[in-house]
Amino acid sequence: MNAENGRDRRSDGRSPRQARPVKILRGVLRYPEGSAWIRLGETQVLCAVTVDERIPQWLRGRKHGWVTAEYGMLPRSVPERAPRGRVSGRSTEIQRLIGRCLRAAVDLERIPDLTLTVDCDVLEADGGTRVASITAAWVALADAFERMRERGRIAEDPLKGKVAGISVGLVGGVGMVDLAHAEDSRAQLDLNLVGTDDGRLVEIQGAAEGEPFDEAEMRGLLRLARRGLGAMFRAQEKACAAPRSGRFEVTWRR
Amino acid sequence: MNAENGRDRRSDGRSPRQARPVKILRGVLRYPEGSAWIRLGETQVLCAVTVDERIPQWLRGRKHGWVTAEYGMLPRSVPERAPRGRVSGRSTEIQRLIGRCLRAAVDLERIPDLTLTVDCDVLEADGGTRVASITAAWVALADAFERMRERGRIAEDPLKGKVAGISVGLVGGVGMVDLAHAEDSRAQLDLNLVGTDDGRLVEIQGAAEGEPFDEAEMRGLLRLARRGLGAMFRAQEKACAAPRSGRFEVTWRR
Amino acid sequence: MNAENGRDRRSDGRSPRQARPVKILRGVLRYPEGSAWIRLGETQVLCAVTVDERIPQWLRGRKHGWVTAEYGMLPRSVPERAPRGRVSGRSTEIQRLIGRCLRAAVDLERIPDLTLTVDCDVLEADGGTRVASITAAWVALADAFERMRERGRIAEDPLKGKVAGISVGLVGGVGMVDLAHAEDSRAQLDLNLVGTDDGRLVEIQGAAEGEPFDEAEMRGLLRLARRGLGAMFRAQEKACAAPRSGRFEVTWRR
Amino acid sequence: MNAENGRDRRSDGRSPRQARPVKILRGVLRYPEGSAWIRLGETQVLCAVTVDERIPQWLRGRKHGWVTAEYGMLPRSVPERAPRGRVSGRSTEIQRLIGRCLRAAVDLERIPDLTLTVDCDVLEADGGTRVASITAAWVALADAFERMRERGRIAEDPLKGKVAGISVGLVGGVGMVDLAHAEDSRAQLDLNLVGTDDGRLVEIQGAAEGEPFDEAEMRGLLRLARRGLGAMFRAQEKACAAPRSGRFEVTWRR
Amino acid sequence: MNAENGRDRRSDGRSPRQARPVKILRGVLRYPEGSAWIRLGETQVLCAVTVDERIPQWLRGRKHGWVTAEYGMLPRSVPERAPRGRVSGRSTEIQRLIGRCLRAAVDLERIPDLTLTVDCDVLEADGGTRVASITAAWVALADAFERMRERGRIAEDPLKGKVAGISVGLVGGVGMVDLAHAEDSRAQLDLNLVGTDDGRLVEIQGAAEGEPFDEAEMRGLLRLARRGLGAMFRAQEKACAAPRSGRFEVTWRR
Amino acid sequence: MNAENGRDRRSDGRSPRQARPVKILRGVLRYPEGSAWIRLGETQVLCAVTVDERIPQWLRGRKHGWVTAEYGMLPRSVPERAPRGRVSGRSTEIQRLIGRCLRAAVDLERIPDLTLTVDCDVLEADGGTRVASITAAWVALADAFERMRERGRIAEDPLKGKVAGISVGLVGGVGMVDLAHAEDSRAQLDLNLVGTDDGRLVEIQGAAEGEPFDEAEMRGLLRLARRGLGAMFRAQEKACAAPRSGRFEVTWRR
Repeated sequence: MNAENGRDRRSDGRSPRQARPVKILRGVLRYPEGSAWIRLGETQVLCAVTVDERIPQWLRGRKHGWVTAEYGMLPRSVPERAPRGRVSGRSTEIQRLIGRCLRAAVDLERIPDLTLTVDCDVLEADGGTRVASITAAWVALADAFERMRERGRIAEDPLKGKVAGISVGLVGGVGMVDLAHAEDSRAQLDLNLVGTDDGRLVEIQGAAEGEPFDEAEMRGLLRLARRGLGAMFRAQEKACAAPRSGRFEVTWRR
Repeated sequence: MNAENGRDRRSDGRSPRQARPVKILRGVLRYPEGSAWIRLGETQVLCAVTVDERIPQWLRGRKHGWVTAEYGMLPRSVPERAPRGRVSGRSTEIQRLIGRCLRAAVDLERIPDLTLTVDCDVLEADGGTRVASITAAWVALADAFERMRERGRIAEDPLKGKVAGISVGLVGGVGMVDLAHAEDSRAQLDLNLVGTDDGRLVEIQGAAEGEPFDEAEMRGLLRLARRGLGAMFRAQEKACAAPRSGRFEVTWRR
Repeated sequence: MNAENGRDRRSDGRSPRQARPVKILRGVLRYPEGSAWIRLGETQVLCAVTVDERIPQWLRGRKHGWVTAEYGMLPRSVPERAPRGRVSGRSTEIQRLIGRCLRAAVDLERIPDLTLTVDCDVLEADGGTRVASITAAWVALADAFERMRERGRIAEDPLKGKVAGISVGLVGGVGMVDLAHAEDSRAQLDLNLVGTDDGRLVEIQGAAEGEPFDEAEMRGLLRLARRGLGAMFRAQEKACAAPRSGRFEVTWRR
Repeated sequence: MNAENGRDRRSDGRSPRQARPVKILRGVLRYPEGSAWIRLGETQVLCAVTVDERIPQWLRGRKHGWVTAEYGMLPRSVPERAPRGRVSGRSTEIQRLIGRCLRAAVDLERIPDLTLTVDCDVLEADGGTRVASITAAWVALADAFERMRERGRIAEDPLKGKVAGISVGLVGGVGMVDLAHAEDSRAQLDLNLVGTDDGRLVEIQGAAEGEPFDEAEMRGLLRLARRGLGAMFRAQEKACAAPRSGRFEVTWRR
Repeated sequence: MNAENGRDRRSDGRSPRQARPVKILRGVLRYPEGSAWIRLGETQVLCAVTVDERIPQWLRGRKHGWVTAEYGMLPRSVPERAPRGRVSGRSTEIQRLIGRCLRAAVDLERIPDLTLTVDCDVLEADGGTRVASITAAWVALADAFERMRERGRIAEDPLKGKVAGISVGLVGGVGMVDLAHAEDSRAQLDLNLVGTDDGRLVEIQGAAEGEPFDEAEMRGLLRLARRGLGAMFRAQEKACAAPRSGRFEVTWRR
Repeated sequence: MNAENGRDRRSDGRSPRQARPVKILRGVLRYPEGSAWIRLGETQVLCAVTVDERIPQWLRGRKHGWVTAEYGMLPRSVPERAPRGRVSGRSTEIQRLIGRCLRAAVDLERIPDLTLTVDCDVLEADGGTRVASITAAWVALADAFERMRERGRIAEDPLKGKVAGISVGLVGGVGMVDLAHAEDSRAQLDLNLVGTDDGRLVEIQGAAEGEPFDEAEMRGLLRLARRGLGAMFRAQEKACAAPRSGRFEVTWRR
């Protein structure tokens, strides 16, 4: 694995250790308590937070709330039209992952008796939709918590720190960060990592496609991932620093 | 009904006979054969055309193709979160309407053995989502047909003319064009009209909410609608004149 | 459009401005609070009213009740057997229409905290099933309200007036009232109208099949519809004047 | 069990060994290949036969066809409205029973490569709907076979004999034939029998409600059933002797 | 029918009047309140009892509880893999039968406000799965009631007696007891009987496959069934006499 | 993390680095092409392989076959009864994982045009059901391949090596291998690993419950996992060395 030298160029001109341009806007939607839009290369996801004063049956009587997520794709966010309204196995898996990662970032005792649902809808998919969703969903949550504090619905900020996701993989023997779809489909090893801004991990999911992998390869990819996560945390920071608008527009990108 | 004098002002400052600002972009998505985005006031819809070389069973053997539509809303395009993936009665009704109207604009013999599906996904809803969907779906179709002709998949333009939709209604006794959600929910009479740019109609749907209406009231609203449709046809014209980009971005609107 | 002269004869011998024979019986079923059977030409529909003391969640706390409808077809009410138990898009659209029209006829404050569901089941279909359903459902409601008043469940008659439906259409350039299935499938313009017995309208739904239509054509059809609605109101009158039986029988018709 | 003496009177005045009045009409519907309507006391069922030139996958390559049945109830054929379109466990059980019994009456080699589906829809239910369905479905099949022979679709009559059903039960210690709903719900032992007109059985289904039963009781009920089946065979005979009409009407019954 | 002489030998060497070896263990599972495993020849079923303190809506206010059953098959308990998770018509019919038979054995007033659900899951199927399920489900119930009494959840034993099931059939003109799958599929008459240990019946279900049957044949099979039921009652007795373990193991059988 | 010293004792008396007793039998079922049963502590899973000569649409034309898995739980394999027949998000996630891991062990070109489905049904659940399923499913596959080679359906053994799974976790700050349910629910970090017998990995899934984890903790758990995987490979070896029986029995375990 020779990702470290960074001399290989990818089809979009990036070096192996370079993540795609990432841009996040928060507070883009009118109705939800919090929202965010992310573009990571050509991947675009819209996140919306709904605050509900009912909590799931099995949580009643405890002192804390709950955070969950739902993930969907517009039928033509992908090359082949996907039938509308069918929750595939893949979607189920992804929304469970998003929910777990968000809960790792939230002190659930600070949202007593509240359920927050974060809808993540993919507008365009070009690889990394699950990690982009986590990164943007965290911003949407931060946006919601800010508004909830302003309105006195909660007393203290429930966020324990930042959480973001990144994909890394071994493609043609080269370790690469933030795989585009074409790279992802050729990867021998595909690793999705979700980390916190203090350098720890909340989730690791790796699967060999074809050949098994060894621990040394995995450690190499973990190093690459750290750098990529840094870029995500900076984009989250920037998004939160900007004011909410609540009104967005679609424009050309050139 | 005193819409004609135009002195009444609406909550957003419009006169009764004034439609909301409308903006349409075509060719915004990467993967679909044709696409369009519309913003009509605060309502935003994304349309994507899929061309499929299979036609429904009951059409086989005839010489013509088919155009159909599907309509969905992002869960938080509306004030109260709508459960994901459930096709409501309302959605069913709307997507059947969109399909019929689009077929009225297309010479189906010019797309032999092809099925075109137009996905209309509401990103933000503030009244008029069904008519905005029709107006944008026509642009997405035009975008698809242009590309199909360039690639030689079809020989001649299948479009017989423009088709667009507009809502009109009686609100507090005043006839108004292009109702926002708050107006729509107070309307005694709600009329959705779909017309062609040669001044004819392809669909009329009117329902009294509360009191029945008489024909004179309906005729007054039809006059108002003509003017509104004009604005839609101009926005379609402008969208088609601009080149495709295939890459879009979300930005703030102020 | 030369419907007005009435010289054209239709396949069943009717003049263009002549509705099919209509016959309505009320109180035909044993169990429901109200019921009606209609035969309009060869179309036959059975309507049954269920009174439920629960109201939908979103209505609670208001002072009024609700009226809703469900529409179904026996599998062999149509030439090609329709699979059982699947609620098609068309059925969804029709049952929403029936519900809206019935609510237009009822003072919902006079049925506080009650939900009335009107089941409309098509036994034989030959065009006009939706308008026949509305016409008969109104009689079934009147039957139910009479019984509810007799039993003291409600104090005053909630009906604000009669409501009935009729179809009109342009077939081969000729305006015709009350289309049979074979006519309906050839119609360039198909208009379903629901009106009140004081000459106003509660619903208009028109769709061009093929060529768009102009307002003059629509106005011509509206005139034809008035006459057809008159026949429906007379049949409703006659049905309500007859006593309930609660026991029906199927017999030959020759 | 003292049914044999016949002195007990039932709530509708019948003796224990007396079946309810039964009336069957065949050929009542316009579209199906065969049809029948039955009234057994207050129970009414409509049967329609559909002939399909496709046979189930697992039958292909054999030389014979198939007969199957579907059973449904109008939502208000029963005292408490039953939700539309849900196939309950009870319905599933009944339609499997009807299918088996009809196949026992048909020489499947005489309908090669054809599937006949008999829809049995209950208009009014007052006990005995499953056996009334079998009795009427046989008539609908006979009606279909007659038409198919006239049109040359089949060469020979596929019917091997008559098949009809009857219910018997022990109510308050008394054996009774053809139970009405009120009797059925009080029965300690409820037996549904399907027999042929040569005195043999094709199906027996008996269930104790509460106390178990002994064989002597069952034999007593079997004797009662024979007499009831005789009445059903005579009604079938009469229905088949009458000509088809294809047009029916609903009238009052007094 | 010459079953009585018993000279015919079956493919597995049994005489016509000989049931397959039956073995029942109770208390095999860790979590359920009661459980049992049965092997009847090559057929194996696992039963588990769940006690729920909620009763169905329609039972509220009465003084008694409820017993119900669910029946499933592992996808490869059968020669051709059956799709997972689809409740077939056959399963529905069987689980309704199991529930009825168990209720016949239980004094429902002795389990006030409790619902017991008995899951019957077929591990291997070789004919007789429904009757084996009933026989084992009774043992699982007995196991549950014993534990419930020990824990003071109920005061008295709700069991009124033993209930078990057996299949009998006419195969090649010979009456046989306890049909294996290969025999069952060749049977002209297939009879499932559920009886009590005092010699009475709670359920009889017989269906002719092909030729109708006469009463004499049925009576002959009933005699055969009595003997088979005896073997089942002895296996139940033995299972109940053994102590619970709560831990089971799968081993080879030779 | 002090798992390495092994002094801590767990509730079942194991040391932290000790896996539970594991026992695997192959060829236990009559009908499937291959099968296996595993007991890992109190967790028990039954696996069955179905060979189908149809391959998924998207694989046609390629030269290789496919391996997929389905995962289910008996309703009372768990403390709280789980509704039957509902494929939960968790099940979906697990069966996708099992399928991926098995495909990593199989040379798909050696099973051209065949689809193998491995059903994994949990009989008893006490933690580790997904990894036990993978370990046993590999044995069931090996069993199927052996039979397929004997019968000449495939030429060469498609297995590239052994694949097995193990869970490790941090519980109360102590690293532990093969978590039982009670341990799993208290774990701060839960890692499921799937490896090959040449010391490489095919899947890693780790999730922090509560506190994030660092790489050092993860590496410590990976070391623990290696030892646990060794025990699994030995159990697979032993199972494959034993002959098939095709007949199993349930017995007590003490």
